[in-house]
Amino acid sequence: MPMIRETIVTTMDASGKVQIAPLGLIRDGAHWIIAPFRPSTTLANLEQVPYAVANHTDDVRVFAGCLTGRRDWPLAPSDTIKVPRLAGVMTHLELEVVEVIEDPQRPRFRCRVAHEKIHSAFLGYNRAKLAVIEAAVLSSRLHMLPREKVESEIAYLNIAISKTADVAELEAWGWLMEK
Amino acid sequence: MPMIRETIVTTMDASGKVQIAPLGLIRDGAHWIIAPFRPSTTLANLEQVPYAVANHTDDVRVFAGCLTGRRDWPLAPSDTIKVPRLAGVMTHLELEVVEVIEDPQRPRFRCRVAHEKIHSAFLGYNRAKLAVIEAAVLSSRLHMLPREKVESEIAYLNIAISKTADVAELEAWGWLMEK
Repeated sequence: MPMIRETIVTTMDASGKVQIAPLGLIRDGAHWIIAPFRPSTTLANLEQVPYAVANHTDDVRVFAGCLTGRRDWPLAPSDTIKVPRLAGVMTHLELEVVEVIEDPQRPRFRCRVAHEKIHSAFLGYNRAKLAVIEAAVLSSRLHMLPREKVESEIAYLNIAISKTADVAELEAWGWLMEK
Repeated sequence: MPMIRETIVTTMDASGKVQIAPLGLIRDGAHWIIAPFRPSTTLANLEQVPYAVANHTDDVRVFAGCLTGRRDWPLAPSDTIKVPRLAGVMTHLELEVVEVIEDPQRPRFRCRVAHEKIHSAFLGYNRAKLAVIEAAVLSSRLHMLPREKVESEIAYLNIAISKTADVAELEAWGWLMEK
């Protein structure tokens, strides 16, 4: 099975407008595949400007925020491409689309890593952060899941939140619970 | 609430024998607190040799392995202390105990970061890795939880495994399921 990494992807349209979106990147050897559903802003952007940044951040508010209408996160210039990165990242990868595999529902953009930069150390897994990411994935699928299933999964994830969350994780969790 | 980071801690006894154990480190400002239960090898080691390494690894087989009798993982020398680190880490912190807060059940060893080294980039969250870490925490508490609750949580975590696991995650998951 391919390795999928949940991360924050920045893309840009031809006019320079930036989109920040949580996406699962699919590993393909030394490449990463971005496979956004049609229609989506990320997809439209990649068709206009074939570059993207994979922003590996520990601030799970960005995941929860993008899914709850809070898409305005601080950006910083990338090193080798015009598409900017998130300002607060542990590592970022600057990606260049090298192949587009067309599909009516979900085209795949195969990207090479043009540049990788480590900004700060990964300080270990935190169960509350993991729970926010799981809840974010869940919240993006509310329309496909029965209410009872969503509620039982949230109850389970809430255990980790109650035991290991710090301020940022509680804020992110609150946004998702509102939704 | 304090931030808790699930990581792999290496410690050493006076004879030089190394212990590799998954533990939650508690953040305390610039310090990290190691709070192992009594009795445990990590606790006995810290009383003999007041140094430890926090090994932030992406290889979740180490978490699952240590909980299922597979404690023999490759080590490498640390830079500033005698206690070795895991060979396969993204980042490691060399810790020196600066205070011991005694407790009959669970003493707390407050540590300063003597040295931090980044070895490789954090490449984003993977839901299967997160599920293995949650299942590892669960498996360490089997004696305290009703069987039905454990089974329903495992069924939930298995969704992420079935969708996003690579070979290493499937191996780690298999070890935990055996247990």
